[in-house]
Amino acid sequence: MKLVRFGPKGQEKPGVIDADGKLRDLSSVVADITPEEVRLSKLAGLKATDVSALPVVEGDVRYGVPVNKIGKIIAVGLNYADHAAESNLPVPSEPIFFTKAVTSLTGPNDDVMKPRDATKMDWEVELGLIIGKTCRYVEEADALSHVAGYVLVNDISERAFQKERGTQWVKGKGCDTFCPTGPWLVTPEEIGDVHNLDMFLNVNGQRMQTGNTKTLIFNVAHCISYISRFITLQPGDLVITGTPPGVGEGKKPNAIYLNAGDTMHLGITGLGEQRQTVVPFSLEHQEIIG
Amino acid sequence: MKLVRFGPKGQEKPGVIDADGKLRDLSSVVADITPEEVRLSKLAGLKATDVSALPVVEGDVRYGVPVNKIGKIIAVGLNYADHAAESNLPVPSEPIFFTKAVTSLTGPNDDVMKPRDATKMDWEVELGLIIGKTCRYVEEADALSHVAGYVLVNDISERAFQKERGTQWVKGKGCDTFCPTGPWLVTPEEIGDVHNLDMFLNVNGQRMQTGNTKTLIFNVAHCISYISRFITLQPGDLVITGTPPGVGEGKKPNAIYLNAGDTMHLGITGLGEQRQTVVPFSLEHQEIIG
Repeated sequence: MKLVRFGPKGQEKPGVIDADGKLRDLSSVVADITPEEVRLSKLAGLKATDVSALPVVEGDVRYGVPVNKIGKIIAVGLNYADHAAESNLPVPSEPIFFTKAVTSLTGPNDDVMKPRDATKMDWEVELGLIIGKTCRYVEEADALSHVAGYVLVNDISERAFQKERGTQWVKGKGCDTFCPTGPWLVTPEEIGDVHNLDMFLNVNGQRMQTGNTKTLIFNVAHCISYISRFITLQPGDLVITGTPPGVGEGKKPNAIYLNAGDTMHLGITGLGEQRQTVVPFSLEHQEIIG
Repeated sequence: MKLVRFGPKGQEKPGVIDADGKLRDLSSVVADITPEEVRLSKLAGLKATDVSALPVVEGDVRYGVPVNKIGKIIAVGLNYADHAAESNLPVPSEPIFFTKAVTSLTGPNDDVMKPRDATKMDWEVELGLIIGKTCRYVEEADALSHVAGYVLVNDISERAFQKERGTQWVKGKGCDTFCPTGPWLVTPEEIGDVHNLDMFLNVNGQRMQTGNTKTLIFNVAHCISYISRFITLQPGDLVITGTPPGVGEGKKPNAIYLNAGDTMHLGITGLGEQRQTVVPFSLEHQEIIG
């Protein structure tokens, strides 16, 4: 099942993509796709929906983050050997992880804002997953049974904030609009082997990242199990699993960073695609109304 | 005004501490103390409550985290010069910050669980604040007007997880029960000068930390303003501002770490006190039901 949220920012409705790729309105079944609704015990009910009976939504729509009110975002770093090399960092002996602020979440095709002081803004296509059952000291063999579904994520970073303003990466990872997520939350039975998915990311039409989840250093189950020894994962939490080679800071002979007007296009097999345009930060444009 | 949440875990009711120090039940005025309720525009309404008309709650009660559903926790590190020195780290030239998982939140006097693999568990008394108005590129001069109130926090850490398992501190900061918060959310007019508050922390009755917020390297307004250039703070977010000297890892001639059975007692002028006992981790004891 492919779950979505569609409509204007802050007014998204729940939807589902049917077998023909058509969007159907799920509002008659559930009010919203929330952490409570992706809890595996409730998600089983959603999966039983007769999708063919739901009204088709015609025309272009905006997609939002497929789960509303995500509780936290845990991001695994340096999880593809070639990416660690291009970052001039050693392959970690155990997973390294950091967090992204939940305020960085935005729809898959929303504009991405360049922060006022940004000079080294970069892209990262990543396989993400949404937790469906609380994870606390979960065994690796049991970890994948805690996943509600998979999502495509662009883990936008500002490298100067991340690496030149102290040691803690969070400073360059959590800016507004730095976590485009979606379009779909795809339940596991529809994905097949999550460790054999092609990934790509283009900037201004030029291929920058090409990868496959089969080259993950720490596989998805290992990441979930490992994180759960330190931090409890709850239904609706988002875990992103690292990026393959080809980020801007690793480009030769010179690094390439994002500027206003640049466009990104990315995708992962079975998880859909995203297209974003970089725009200057403006208080008017910011989409989280406070 | 001193706002509280009291009652069994997960069933807390809103309350207020009156001028005589008595707990009064605020349930007739508001259903819960949430991020929405501490938004300054709504908080003004709460402050107009005739507290003397509310029913007094007699007897011993458990206090919970004074705000439910805190959206994120941003923690400023190394913000007292003497603490940076005892940590063998340079005084930062600009604030360093990291995050604590929201799943680490627990009531001020709840047991603190030692994670299964923990060997270097440590304490940190800290001044915390709850945001009352969205902060995004907030000027320092305007920053304190975005604060809903102040809280006492014990920023529990596991130093081996924090510093010996990769570079990102979050691994040692976000374990379940690692963020005892409360008992009170104290609105700013009741605090006076937030930069002249005494702080203490005892372990097993022995004084470990003695400090005052007047020795903060980066003051509260600077921290809020600075963070808001990277991460948007929203009503209900918790910011903690660093700890004075006296943490366990800095003790001479040998570091002192927490073990099951140890007790902590801490306080800050005007913000109340906390008392915790360290217990071994157990799935039965964990207080976040998943």
